[in-house]
Amino acid sequence: MKEQIIRIMEQHRGSFVSGEELSRRLDVSRTAVWKHIAALREDGYEFEAVPKRGYRLVQVPERLRPERIRELLRTTTLGHTLHVYDTLDSTQTKAHELVAQGAQEGTLVIADRQTAGRGRMGRVWHSPPGAGIYMSLILKPRIPLQFTPQLTLLAAVALCRAIVRIARVPVGIKWPNDLLIGGKKICGILLESSAEDERLRYIVAGMGIGVNLLPDDYPPELRSIATSLAIEAGHRFEREVLIAAVLEEFEALYKLYDEQGFGPIRSLWEANSASLNRPVRVRTAQGELEGIAESLDDSGGLNVRLADGTMTKIFSGEVELR
Amino acid sequence: MKEQIIRIMEQHRGSFVSGEELSRRLDVSRTAVWKHIAALREDGYEFEAVPKRGYRLVQVPERLRPERIRELLRTTTLGHTLHVYDTLDSTQTKAHELVAQGAQEGTLVIADRQTAGRGRMGRVWHSPPGAGIYMSLILKPRIPLQFTPQLTLLAAVALCRAIVRIARVPVGIKWPNDLLIGGKKICGILLESSAEDERLRYIVAGMGIGVNLLPDDYPPELRSIATSLAIEAGHRFEREVLIAAVLEEFEALYKLYDEQGFGPIRSLWEANSASLNRPVRVRTAQGELEGIAESLDDSGGLNVRLADGTMTKIFSGEVELR
Repeated sequence: MKEQIIRIMEQHRGSFVSGEELSRRLDVSRTAVWKHIAALREDGYEFEAVPKRGYRLVQVPERLRPERIRELLRTTTLGHTLHVYDTLDSTQTKAHELVAQGAQEGTLVIADRQTAGRGRMGRVWHSPPGAGIYMSLILKPRIPLQFTPQLTLLAAVALCRAIVRIARVPVGIKWPNDLLIGGKKICGILLESSAEDERLRYIVAGMGIGVNLLPDDYPPELRSIATSLAIEAGHRFEREVLIAAVLEEFEALYKLYDEQGFGPIRSLWEANSASLNRPVRVRTAQGELEGIAESLDDSGGLNVRLADGTMTKIFSGEVELR
Repeated sequence: MKEQIIRIMEQHRGSFVSGEELSRRLDVSRTAVWKHIAALREDGYEFEAVPKRGYRLVQVPERLRPERIRELLRTTTLGHTLHVYDTLDSTQTKAHELVAQGAQEGTLVIADRQTAGRGRMGRVWHSPPGAGIYMSLILKPRIPLQFTPQLTLLAAVALCRAIVRIARVPVGIKWPNDLLIGGKKICGILLESSAEDERLRYIVAGMGIGVNLLPDDYPPELRSIATSLAIEAGHRFEREVLIAAVLEEFEALYKLYDEQGFGPIRSLWEANSASLNRPVRVRTAQGELEGIAESLDDSGGLNVRLADGTMTKIFSGEVELR
């Protein structure tokens, strides 16, 4: 039914089609037409609706073009096996399934929309179609389990560098892997890992970037805490360009990490940090604490100087900049 | 068909039933009878076969009794939710499914037999029915991902203490979690963990113990490297008693770990170690090295002193005692 509405509207591109005509041609009620239009809006279609004149198709959702990503890709491994979907519940879930089926390192899963996108701490990741990047990268680094959190920080640096290069906006990293512009979240990272005893088996690095979302695309509760590249830069970006840039930066850092360990990654993370040398409040499983975030620990933890001058290490927790 | 054979044999418990009679009563060929008898032997049934007289049922497989485990259990959490199966492909796989369905900390999965039991490094864990313990314990400790390998060591100490207490045999731990008697493996441990960024989500601690296996129960390639409690102690053990003891020891150490951290666990591991102060060869992802295993690292790694006197840390690898 939605496809039929789109076909009729595209035949009349630029002009209005009345609800009555749609109702007659599709042989459904006016209410049914209205419901399908509402569903199409959810899918990213934009309609102008004018009383007595009807509906006019203003914009069709922008589709991700896998061939364009391939054309732009300058990596040797990451993203060469590419699975692009219109809709997924979650690119993370799909990537885990692909690993179970034998997917290799560098395999990338992208969806134009997620119906149940996953964020940190069981939160939902808002994933409307046509305007964001929702992707999951499969990695199988041969590192001990203890070092896994270092890859969370590596991912944050890769995304930060790609965004700054393409969008020329000032991005800072909040420990461990939140990317912020002016205190608002521009990007979410979620590394899900699976290990056996002391050995890491694989990682699925989930990345969500608000690229071309406009303020109206956010639910009210997110407007004050989330932003997009389009909002910050004042213009739209080609999502495929950003995807290719993220993979390039990721691969370069991943190679550096493999060759030289965490040292250079730590320096880059610290250089791009929004949380160092600042007062922070940290919520951990053991309780809350306040102090000054001073540096990264060798294993990727955050060294926080407390009011009494002592230093404490945060391995896991939620950081709030004060 | 197998059930019918067992019913007939149990009616004639103690005496022989000829293959001809079985063939006639079941209305199948003699060859079919022979095949079903072979399959029943795989299931743990023992038959005496005498030419011209036929088959005599000598022993039926010992079944695990959940009610006996419950009766013996002295824990406050671990094992209180208990799933006991005759046959599973793998108790690990089932436990992961249960976590996805919301299973809580302490949930225990036991199978009398596994058809695809999993060992370390993708190896198969030999899991014949009636004689071994194959179980998976679900844990959701609130610890940072970096500390997960400490639980692998904790599991090894728990099993070691339970086995020594019940079977009075000399068990030593080979880093990280192999339990050995006289250089042969008595027990396998496999901790599969799932994490999100720097936070551990859950662990499935898989444990396999050769309890009442006899030398003939092992395939030839395992006879020189594996052993059982029955072989070592010279008599059979009640599996339920050992299961309850493992859970008790595990819970006590898990509580100690929660309250006091890794320190006391490390001391207990070192006290039960078969690999410390001994020459070892270690295969890691980066290559092989030889030295003397000196101590456990704070994070659970193995400190190895090389021939040139320098100390190196092993976070992941296979240790061979020399």
